Amino acid sequence: MKLSERELIERWKRALPRPRGRLRLGIGDDAALYELDGERYGIFTTDMLVEDVHFRRAWTSGEDLGWKSVAVNLSDIAAMGGQAELVLIAAALPPAVSVDEADAILRGAHDCAGAYGAQVAGGDTVRSGGPLILSVSAFGEARKDEVLRRDGARAGDLIAVTGSFGGAAAALRMLERGERPPADLLSRLHRPLPRLEEGQALARAGVRCGLDCSDGLLRSLDLIAEASGVSIVVSPENIPLDPSVRTKLGREVALELALEGGEDYELVVAGAEGTLRASGLRLTVIGEVVAGTSARVLLRDASGVRAAKDAGYDAFRG
Amino acid sequence: MKLSERELIERWKRALPRPRGRLRLGIGDDAALYELDGERYGIFTTDMLVEDVHFRRAWTSGEDLGWKSVAVNLSDIAAMGGQAELVLIAAALPPAVSVDEADAILRGAHDCAGAYGAQVAGGDTVRSGGPLILSVSAFGEARKDEVLRRDGARAGDLIAVTGSFGGAAAALRMLERGERPPADLLSRLHRPLPRLEEGQALARAGVRCGLDCSDGLLRSLDLIAEASGVSIVVSPENIPLDPSVRTKLGREVALELALEGGEDYELVVAGAEGTLRASGLRLTVIGEVVAGTSARVLLRDASGVRAAKDAGYDAFRG
Repeated sequence: MKLSERELIERWKRALPRPRGRLRLGIGDDAALYELDGERYGIFTTDMLVEDVHFRRAWTSGEDLGWKSVAVNLSDIAAMGGQAELVLIAAALPPAVSVDEADAILRGAHDCAGAYGAQVAGGDTVRSGGPLILSVSAFGEARKDEVLRRDGARAGDLIAVTGSFGGAAAALRMLERGERPPADLLSRLHRPLPRLEEGQALARAGVRCGLDCSDGLLRSLDLIAEASGVSIVVSPENIPLDPSVRTKLGREVALELALEGGEDYELVVAGAEGTLRASGLRLTVIGEVVAGTSARVLLRDASGVRAAKDAGYDAFRG
Repeated sequence: MKLSERELIERWKRALPRPRGRLRLGIGDDAALYELDGERYGIFTTDMLVEDVHFRRAWTSGEDLGWKSVAVNLSDIAAMGGQAELVLIAAALPPAVSVDEADAILRGAHDCAGAYGAQVAGGDTVRSGGPLILSVSAFGEARKDEVLRRDGARAGDLIAVTGSFGGAAAALRMLERGERPPADLLSRLHRPLPRLEEGQALARAGVRCGLDCSDGLLRSLDLIAEASGVSIVVSPENIPLDPSVRTKLGREVALELALEGGEDYELVVAGAEGTLRASGLRLTVIGEVVAGTSARVLLRDASGVRAAKDAGYDAFRG
C-alpha cells in the first residue's frame, strides 16, 4: 500500500458517513463519543500494537507489553476527559509465545486497568503465524458538558502540557543503538502513565480542548490547529524536557525528541488562563493560540517566528 | 504454546478477579455486561480474524472480509439479546494489501454495521509484516431484564435454534478440496447474518438462555450445559440441516457438519415452550434440558441415548 497509516485513517474517515443518532463524534479524535443518556457520553477507542512495528519482544517484558497495550487506550480516554471503565483485549499469539509470557501479558494489562479504576471485561486469543499483535479497545464515561476535543481551541487560549517530553523516544533511540537506557527512561517507553486524573481535572475546570501526545508534540499541536481552524505559536524553550534526556543527550537532542519523538502520552490542552489554573494541576504553558484558519504551528525563539516544519528541519538537520 | 485458544481463554478467565461494580458479567459468555443505569446493560465484545487461520484472501473478497469481521461481533450482541450500536475496527495490513482492498474491507464492515442499525465509530490501522488481521470490537445495549446468558437453562426447558446448520462448514470443506461451492453456501461462510432481531425477540418473549453457534452446535450445547449445570438431550434427526448441504453431500455428512462444523452464527436457546412460542419466531426444537449437574450433551436416536462425543465418533468415523 502506498498510503501511510495516517493517510489511510483520513481516507477511511472521509469514506464513512457522518455520525448519526446517539453517536456524536466518530473517527477523527482520540476516541468516539456516544450519548448514553441526557448527561453522559460513552467514550470508545481502539489501538493495536504490532510486534516489530510498535515493540520488540527482546526489549520488553510480557507485563510491560500488557501494561502498555492498555495504557495507550486509556490515554485516549484521558484525552477526552473521561473516566476509564472497561478494556477488551484481543491477542494474536505466534507459536513462540509461551503460556508464561501470555500470562504475563494479561497480568500487565490487568494491572494497568486496575491502576486506573478500569476492568478487563473480555477478550479473544487466536494463534497467528505472524507477529504478536495486541488489539485493545476501551470504554469510558464522561459528563457531556465536560469533554476535551481536538477542535475546541480558540484564539487567545494558552497551550499547556502535563509532565515532560522526550523520555520514551530517548529510550527507544538508545535501544536501537544497542545502549542500555536508564530505568526512568525505559519506564517512560514501556510503562506509560495515562493522564486520566489530569484529563478529568482539566475537563471539570472548564478546559474544552485537548488530546494525548502519542505521535510527538508537534504532531499533536498540528492536530489541534487543524481541527480548531487556528494557528499555534510555541516557545520551544518553554517545553518541559525530560531531565534525564537533557543530561544524557544534551538540550538540542532532547528538544528534537520532545517535539518529534512521540509516545510520551502526556496531555496537550488549549484553554483560557483561568480555566487552566482552575484545574489545580501543575501544567507548563508552552505557547498560545492565535486567530486565523491557516492551521499552522509556529515556533518562536530569539531570532523570530518560523513555521515549525522549517524550524524543525533547521534545528534537527541544519 | 501448548494450550489451545479455548484453554488460554479459560486460563485468563480464571486469572482475572470477579467482575465488580457496574461490570456484571466478564469473560465467559458471548459478551460482557455492564450496567449503564438502572434499566440498561451495555454489551461489549471483541473478536479477531487472522489471515490463514480464520480466512484466506484467495477465497474471500475485501468486502466479505469486512462484513464478516463485523458480523461475528454483532452475533455476540445478538446472543445476549441486545441491540447493536457501535463497532470499532483495528486492522493490521501487510504490504500486499492495496488501497482498493483496504477500502473494500471498510465498505464491507460499514455495510454490515449499517444493515443492523450500528455505526463504525472508530478504528486503527497499522502496518504488519505478517498476516492481515482484523480486530473488531462492538458495543450494544439491552434492557437488564431482557438478556440471554449461557447459564440460564433449567430442567424442562426446550432447546431450540434459529435457521439451519452446516452451510458455512460445507463451503469451507469444498474450498479446501479445490471445489467451487454454490453461491448460497459461500454466502453462509463469507456473509454470516447475525441474528439480532431474533435475539431481541427471544429476550423480549422471556427467554433467558442463549448463545450463538460459532464453534459448532455440539460445542454450543456443551457450553450451555456446563454454564447452567444441566444436561441436554438432543434428537439429531430434528436438527435443521442446510438443504444445499444435504443435497450436495448427503445427510450423514450434513449432520456431521451441522454438529461440529461451526461458523453458522445461528442462535441456540433454552426456554419454556410458551416463551419460545411467544417470540413469534420460526424456531426448530431440537432437544430438551434435563436435571442433573453432569453437564453432558446426549444424543437420542432409534437405538437409544448416548453421550454426544461417543455418538459423534460413531456417526462420523465408525
